Amino acid sequence: MACDKEVANVEWRIKVEEDDTLKRKLVGCMWAVTAGVALKLCMFVKKAWELGLNDPRKFIHCLKVGIALSAVSIFYYWKPLNDGVGGNAMWAVMTVVVVFEYTAGATICKTVNRMCGTSLAGFLAIGVHWVASRGGEQLEPIIIGVSLFLLASAATFSRFIPTIKARFDYGAMIFILTFCLVSISGYRVDELLDMAQYRMFTVIIGSILCIIVSVTIRPIWAGFELFVLVTGNLDKLANSLQCCVSQYFGGSEAPEAENDEVSDKKLLGYKCVLGSKATEESMANLARWEPAHGRFNFRHPWRQYVKIGASMRSCASCLDALIGCINSDNKASDEMKKNMSSISMKVGANCASVIRELATTMRNMTKSSKLDILVTEMNSDAQELLGFLSSYPNMVNAPSHNAKLSTQTETAPSDVPLAAKVEIPLMQIIQVVTVASLLIEIVSRMEGIVEAVEELSDLANFQPEMSVKSKQHSADSKISPDQQNAEEADTTLQMV
Amino acid sequence: MACDKEVANVEWRIKVEEDDTLKRKLVGCMWAVTAGVALKLCMFVKKAWELGLNDPRKFIHCLKVGIALSAVSIFYYWKPLNDGVGGNAMWAVMTVVVVFEYTAGATICKTVNRMCGTSLAGFLAIGVHWVASRGGEQLEPIIIGVSLFLLASAATFSRFIPTIKARFDYGAMIFILTFCLVSISGYRVDELLDMAQYRMFTVIIGSILCIIVSVTIRPIWAGFELFVLVTGNLDKLANSLQCCVSQYFGGSEAPEAENDEVSDKKLLGYKCVLGSKATEESMANLARWEPAHGRFNFRHPWRQYVKIGASMRSCASCLDALIGCINSDNKASDEMKKNMSSISMKVGANCASVIRELATTMRNMTKSSKLDILVTEMNSDAQELLGFLSSYPNMVNAPSHNAKLSTQTETAPSDVPLAAKVEIPLMQIIQVVTVASLLIEIVSRMEGIVEAVEELSDLANFQPEMSVKSKQHSADSKISPDQQNAEEADTTLQMV
Repeated sequence: MACDKEVANVEWRIKVEEDDTLKRKLVGCMWAVTAGVALKLCMFVKKAWELGLNDPRKFIHCLKVGIALSAVSIFYYWKPLNDGVGGNAMWAVMTVVVVFEYTAGATICKTVNRMCGTSLAGFLAIGVHWVASRGGEQLEPIIIGVSLFLLASAATFSRFIPTIKARFDYGAMIFILTFCLVSISGYRVDELLDMAQYRMFTVIIGSILCIIVSVTIRPIWAGFELFVLVTGNLDKLANSLQCCVSQYFGGSEAPEAENDEVSDKKLLGYKCVLGSKATEESMANLARWEPAHGRFNFRHPWRQYVKIGASMRSCASCLDALIGCINSDNKASDEMKKNMSSISMKVGANCASVIRELATTMRNMTKSSKLDILVTEMNSDAQELLGFLSSYPNMVNAPSHNAKLSTQTETAPSDVPLAAKVEIPLMQIIQVVTVASLLIEIVSRMEGIVEAVEELSDLANFQPEMSVKSKQHSADSKISPDQQNAEEADTTLQMV
Repeated sequence: MACDKEVANVEWRIKVEEDDTLKRKLVGCMWAVTAGVALKLCMFVKKAWELGLNDPRKFIHCLKVGIALSAVSIFYYWKPLNDGVGGNAMWAVMTVVVVFEYTAGATICKTVNRMCGTSLAGFLAIGVHWVASRGGEQLEPIIIGVSLFLLASAATFSRFIPTIKARFDYGAMIFILTFCLVSISGYRVDELLDMAQYRMFTVIIGSILCIIVSVTIRPIWAGFELFVLVTGNLDKLANSLQCCVSQYFGGSEAPEAENDEVSDKKLLGYKCVLGSKATEESMANLARWEPAHGRFNFRHPWRQYVKIGASMRSCASCLDALIGCINSDNKASDEMKKNMSSISMKVGANCASVIRELATTMRNMTKSSKLDILVTEMNSDAQELLGFLSSYPNMVNAPSHNAKLSTQTETAPSDVPLAAKVEIPLMQIIQVVTVASLLIEIVSRMEGIVEAVEELSDLANFQPEMSVKSKQHSADSKISPDQQNAEEADTTLQMV
């Protein structure tokens, strides 16, 4: 017995000790988990904060939402106003929450959709209700049920139709919502009319408040964002193109190591062009809801920006292939590269200056006087490059001559004497030929961008450059800071 | 006087006649306008109907919405049930309208968001309300107003953070909505607890109903859609590539005129690949909410499909440049084309068969045993093409020999004797060289697709082919009709 007791005692002690270490372990574990979660949370908050610092307009938008909500809740608290809408002021609050969006265009689009959907569905539902109430107690639920089923299905189907989806997607949903609310609720028709009136009134109040806050306090216009995105992408494309050509052909004058990152960023700018299709389309859809702002009219041809974007993407995919070829294994002979460098770099620089001129045209909203000259120059340079390639067998010369060439690069390539022919294996010129012909292909695709921008300038009635020259300077200096700001933001915009 | 009267008479008559013609014109005009509107409406309805016929699942979705709404409105009409939630059954109806989406993933995502947002905001709001009610009548509106402002701003800002935007965008909105509803409404706390309970209960009922209808009646899984989109795009890319190479090099065996449209469609299939980035990303975001379905587990690596899509796009943009070069003005010499046709077409066909094998791998969810061999073959063919190009100066022969070559195309190119050298100007081989080197670039970019698919096969634990060979046959025949259906739909999916 005594022995048993002792054993039990020991066991108990062991248990207590075990419990103690377990407890300690548990506490330690909990601390570790808490610290881990806290650290992660800190990192998350820090990242989010940086996101906001990169684009302060995000902070401003949040403040705007807060202001709009506070304003509409004052309306709720102010008794006479709330009584005026039958105590339904909560609908106004809900409208603000649901309708307030980042860009003014999106806010207006949702507002209009909500008002149209609500009123259309309200009238229809009251009509159906009236018909059903005549049908007697037995028919009433059947009539309402069938009409609900049919209308909800039809409205849902309409959301698949591209034109409706682009403009009235939200409206169709609100239509179903309101129809359900009104037709199902077993109110009498005269009560319904009151309710419909209050609901319309509160929705309108909330909507107007949203539009006012969205448009007056540092407005973010979808149209302007689209404009900045497209013109910024034009610049990026130009930089990428020029950077890539000059890096390849002008390899000898390599940029310094500290500039590597900058030039890499420049080189890969075209990827933004390739990836901005969806953003452009949604912006263009929203922009058409916006009133005239800045230098844009109400019916500014926003769809044209999508077309410009598409033609840019076609160029950018060619540039992507070009950069791929440059990075591939089979290298070109340095001689050939040297021979072609001046003309190729000229083509690249001309392409880039055409693109930049197009961007300037769009920024200044003027018809460029230089554009035609630049395009002609670009085309003739491309022809020259092609001609240079065609005459190449005459150029395959002994290395001795090439050494001479490299010292006098100013000599026009066609001037080279035909003496001392030596064949260069095709292997060594594959890359250069590919790069050159892709450059020519890019030049031919540039036509698409030029045409699209010219169509825009016709549609939007751009003025000839001369007549606005004097105005330009002031406009330029006026717009640039805002634009700069927006341009900085546009990378983050695409990130999100 | 008599004369005057007569004049007046005549005038009157003229006026009457004028009025008559005006009326007739007006009626005619109105008829024309009505007919025009009716015609346009007819066209619109016809188009919409065709949209539905192309993808009957759209019709089914509409019926599902109708069914869900009817079911939830029965719940509203059934008095005991409605009384059980304090007459708040309308919230369940609203939940169904707002939450029901096309794919099961989207429905589940919105459902979970709505439930989480509602409950989180509800608890917070009750807490704030309780604190405010302790603060006395003067402090109460200030505490509530400030907390509303801060929380609404913070929740709005969280919607800009990419990870939250991808998963909890709707939840953040519902959070603000519920917080406003609860904190603004001047109810007492115990009333609030009741209301919160009812609201939670109705939201859950509506949500569960939505999920049941969405998942049980012909469910449309975002994951499966993504899978069909990506594998279909792989096939399209393979077809485009093979079609383009064989059209260019095998021009002599031109397809018949009636097949032109079909082959054009095949050729341009790669454009779908270029344009499906946004669809893929949104599908991948939705798919992760879905439970296991078909052969996909709950944690199927959907993000990997986006990576596969990205690597496909990189190939497709190269193909785009290739097709651009083929359509450009400077034509290649037929001789060179003929010499290179067999090897180039082999590269094209091999590339296509690698892509098709990848698609098969994904469809069968097996690790392919052939893939390594095919990739090796493709790479060695590409090397051969490069080698052929490098040895080309030896190939520039007199036309007499080329005539011989064309009759015995089986002769390996490297066997050509070195006799009778004649130079072909570089001009005539630019295009062929470009096409060949872009082909080689495409082969090198194929590596990205192969790697991405192999990573997928590791992540999703694909079985080795041998062990599932017997199962495969039945699975193949079981899946194909559904897949066919989905594949047909996928073009319309991208359209919308």
